[in-house]
Amino acid sequence: MNLDLDSGILCRKEVACRSKYGKCATRRCHQLAGHPGSCHELPFLRELKQTHPKVAAKIERDSMMTTGAAWKSEQAGPNRILRWVMLLEDEQLRDYGIDMGAMQRQVVSKLRDKAAPYDACVEVAMWLTRLVYNMKGAPDLPDDIREYLQLFFGALPKENSTCVICRKPLPFMLFDEARRGKAAIETCHKDPRVHSAENVGFAHRECNIAQGAKSLNEFYEWIEEILRRAKPDRFA
Amino acid sequence: MNLDLDSGILCRKEVACRSKYGKCATRRCHQLAGHPGSCHELPFLRELKQTHPKVAAKIERDSMMTTGAAWKSEQAGPNRILRWVMLLEDEQLRDYGIDMGAMQRQVVSKLRDKAAPYDACVEVAMWLTRLVYNMKGAPDLPDDIREYLQLFFGALPKENSTCVICRKPLPFMLFDEARRGKAAIETCHKDPRVHSAENVGFAHRECNIAQGAKSLNEFYEWIEEILRRAKPDRFA
Repeated sequence: MNLDLDSGILCRKEVACRSKYGKCATRRCHQLAGHPGSCHELPFLRELKQTHPKVAAKIERDSMMTTGAAWKSEQAGPNRILRWVMLLEDEQLRDYGIDMGAMQRQVVSKLRDKAAPYDACVEVAMWLTRLVYNMKGAPDLPDDIREYLQLFFGALPKENSTCVICRKPLPFMLFDEARRGKAAIETCHKDPRVHSAENVGFAHRECNIAQGAKSLNEFYEWIEEILRRAKPDRFA
Repeated sequence: MNLDLDSGILCRKEVACRSKYGKCATRRCHQLAGHPGSCHELPFLRELKQTHPKVAAKIERDSMMTTGAAWKSEQAGPNRILRWVMLLEDEQLRDYGIDMGAMQRQVVSKLRDKAAPYDACVEVAMWLTRLVYNMKGAPDLPDDIREYLQLFFGALPKENSTCVICRKPLPFMLFDEARRGKAAIETCHKDPRVHSAENVGFAHRECNIAQGAKSLNEFYEWIEEILRRAKPDRFA
């Protein structure tokens, strides 16, 4: 992985942003430097936005937005907010109408844990896009997007995207499966407190739920302890 | 375990019930046959109701009531309902104002999975009471309740209640711990579709969440598979 967005490969011109949080970070164009036509922030999502808009929206949302509580209220805070906004001090956030002091302590720490700089969010979006195109049954990858992603991640192996947690293959069709409105594939973090391309991937919903707030290593240690107590004969 | 409520040991006289579901099952007195004074449905909870009313209420609720969705609505159905009411046919339920046809399919199957006869629910309440008194740090067990529980479960070993799933000790004080309003101890089912004393116990909330809709054996097989892929060197 070679993820220096400022290496000169990319355009990086500022793109217009109408969000009220526009001043928190300069959002940039990530087309190749010297590209023709207009600037685009996440050009690698172009094709997915057309063919599978829900999957593209999921990549954009999960890479850019925090999750807080499941609902929005004074106490619970915003349930989705741009990750880099959560890097601001409490005082600065008050200017945006966000009162961290009024929120439950656990919600604050959850939101703060999920904070990440803008560039890291763009990198995560790139990485998730690469993972999607490497899933079994994924849509065809246009040549220009393939070349683009290879600049950062090297040759794209075919159909090798697996669940970060259980390591079983994750077929693209699982994006269509949802039970009680919950998708069968979730974005997961090996360390729940680090939002970077190296640390993020996709997982089965049930695997992600089982991992919970643990890091992936803590989770493996935890289930190994369970098995050693429940099924001691399985171990050497 | 010797759980024949009709063996003659118990009073089993009908107790008054003001619930609108009163006709679905005859609720009975479970004091010892020939007891003095008035009848009581769950006499083994007498002391806990006084000293730890929340724990007693949890035992009564989890043994007697289903959980449906987290909220109550036409689509989600009742979020808590007496387990034996869920044994009725759709047509009978309509007389009680419950329209199974209007609910989401998954909610219906969840509610139906949690159905159980009245006697099984009483047995589960007894068993959970025994488990609570065998937790480390549990309140003192009055002699009469000890003798009562021993009639059904034999000698009560001291401080040996463990999480059904991870097999670690479950101290009584965990009943007081709650994060975001969720208790640290949950009632769990080895087979999620069987509500009986043999199949029910307590578990850490995180263990119960990880087990999800799987049976306990399926869960162990699942985490073993995960470990065999993620940490193959740990196995013989």
